[in-house]
Amino acid sequence: MTTSAELDGFIRHGGRLAAAQAAFPQAPQPWLDLSTGINPRPYPAPRASRAERARLPDPEALQFLEAAAARTFGARPERVAAVPGSETAIRLLPDLLAVRGVAIAPDTYGGHAEAWRAAGAEVSLSPEDAEAWAVVSPNNPDGRITPADLLLSSAGRRWTLVDEAFVETAPELSLAPRAEGRLVVLRSFGKFYGLAGLRLGFVVADEALVASLRRRLGDWPISADAIAAGLAAYADDAWADRTRARLARDATRLDQLLTRSGLTVVGGTSLFRLARAPDARAVFLRLAAAGVLCRPFADPRLLRFGLPGGAAAWARLEAALSERAR
Amino acid sequence: MTTSAELDGFIRHGGRLAAAQAAFPQAPQPWLDLSTGINPRPYPAPRASRAERARLPDPEALQFLEAAAARTFGARPERVAAVPGSETAIRLLPDLLAVRGVAIAPDTYGGHAEAWRAAGAEVSLSPEDAEAWAVVSPNNPDGRITPADLLLSSAGRRWTLVDEAFVETAPELSLAPRAEGRLVVLRSFGKFYGLAGLRLGFVVADEALVASLRRRLGDWPISADAIAAGLAAYADDAWADRTRARLARDATRLDQLLTRSGLTVVGGTSLFRLARAPDARAVFLRLAAAGVLCRPFADPRLLRFGLPGGAAAWARLEAALSERAR
Repeated sequence: MTTSAELDGFIRHGGRLAAAQAAFPQAPQPWLDLSTGINPRPYPAPRASRAERARLPDPEALQFLEAAAARTFGARPERVAAVPGSETAIRLLPDLLAVRGVAIAPDTYGGHAEAWRAAGAEVSLSPEDAEAWAVVSPNNPDGRITPADLLLSSAGRRWTLVDEAFVETAPELSLAPRAEGRLVVLRSFGKFYGLAGLRLGFVVADEALVASLRRRLGDWPISADAIAAGLAAYADDAWADRTRARLARDATRLDQLLTRSGLTVVGGTSLFRLARAPDARAVFLRLAAAGVLCRPFADPRLLRFGLPGGAAAWARLEAALSERAR
Repeated sequence: MTTSAELDGFIRHGGRLAAAQAAFPQAPQPWLDLSTGINPRPYPAPRASRAERARLPDPEALQFLEAAAARTFGARPERVAAVPGSETAIRLLPDLLAVRGVAIAPDTYGGHAEAWRAAGAEVSLSPEDAEAWAVVSPNNPDGRITPADLLLSSAGRRWTLVDEAFVETAPELSLAPRAEGRLVVLRSFGKFYGLAGLRLGFVVADEALVASLRRRLGDWPISADAIAAGLAAYADDAWADRTRARLARDATRLDQLLTRSGLTVVGGTSLFRLARAPDARAVFLRLAAAGVLCRPFADPRLLRFGLPGGAAAWARLEAALSERAR
């Protein structure tokens, strides 16, 4: 697999392991998936009991979860609505906000522009004249942080949607405590807690928008398993603190490894690192041949790497990269 | 708790165990929940592995699930979209169909009218002049079946949305194989398979509507756990056949018990029975005092009962009802 048409699927989203297996059938199994920004050492979350799995989630359990998340976010519980993954919120909000034009930076998570276009909005690059602005901060893939005062002042003039999917590694940056009026904040559970398969995220916003989103989602938007995991995780501040420290150490270690291998680290958060190399596409293919999946982009010089999750994964990445250095 | 204001929460939806515990603190624990139409003996579904729980669900796994469901429904896979519970589809479809008026029978699942009103549509009783018709068939709570030719001919003139949440007990009635053009069929996983906490349902519809719904939901609409359970369940025809036979026997047994206790069975499906009694509200309260939750309605003469799930549950319901017969 070497044509850029075949790379398109991997450029669209990370985590496409089945596609990687099909495209690189000779690669050693199992794959080491570094194509996402998901913490490779998940929170040891309890599972829903057999009884909880069988019945509809109790509305009270959902309220407890939203209250626990609100405490962690520093927001008021009535401004926090759980959604089955923040991606669902990204897709629903354009309809709820009902604006004709939105500004979105070009080098960011592609789901935002897709969602607004599907809802019939014009997507432009500059927020100056747009009725809405969708921003990922810290940005994926480069980690760029949009200053809080810029976002707050924008929200005085237009709907301002801040996707904080990766803010858990630096929670002091979050605008969730100030989400009101036309400032809407999205939070993700699966990335920092390493449980993306559960599908859990949150919208933090003005009460009226939260109420309207809840009507759109119905009474049972998330699974019993997501409720059980979220309730435990958001109560465990000690795990979150330890994890932030570990992710920061691992991100530094990854930078050193990438640099030694001839790549230039140009950005990221503690959950993923963005690197540049003139031959990044060739590096992607060489790593894939070794069963290591990283994330390519439309810009052929860029690659994003998630963190390896243990000694064997570090050794495998190092070996696959050193093939290149030789 | 005896005022009808306090009954409102139980009239809105079944399954509100936490509210029942709060309203009837003296009732023996644990509650026997007969307030929903969920099979009390769940499919023994596998859980997502630790690795599946950690990563984003692979788009290919979602396709396999949709194909497995399509085979069970007798529909073409490209016409089947998985959703996080059919309630989510009920809430999203009014926006996608964008009509100004919908007809909905008054004595049916309340979520439909709520969803259309939230989307700004007028809700009327007769489909004659409406641009859309939303029908639950078999109907909840009375089991009424709307004839297929009526639905098919309606779909020639207007959007016709058939909620088949309980059709698994009589799958030959399903219109899923004929869902195209303006005929849209909703299917539920959690009720028949007894796993409502997983949040899984399906929309069966024309390719264009399915594509538009998928854009609305994003790439990862359902959890890894829902995918794992659905894949196993839809491949297990033998379990489904045995379960249909058992549910039919249990429904007959429930009818006999309700009749012996002085109630008149007036409808239902094999997953729930609707009964009438002049003192139905008093029966509800007496059962609740014994820790048995059934489902009251705005019509004060009606109660709906789900099936008890084992010998102890049958004995407990019988004892609680016989208090009344004395």
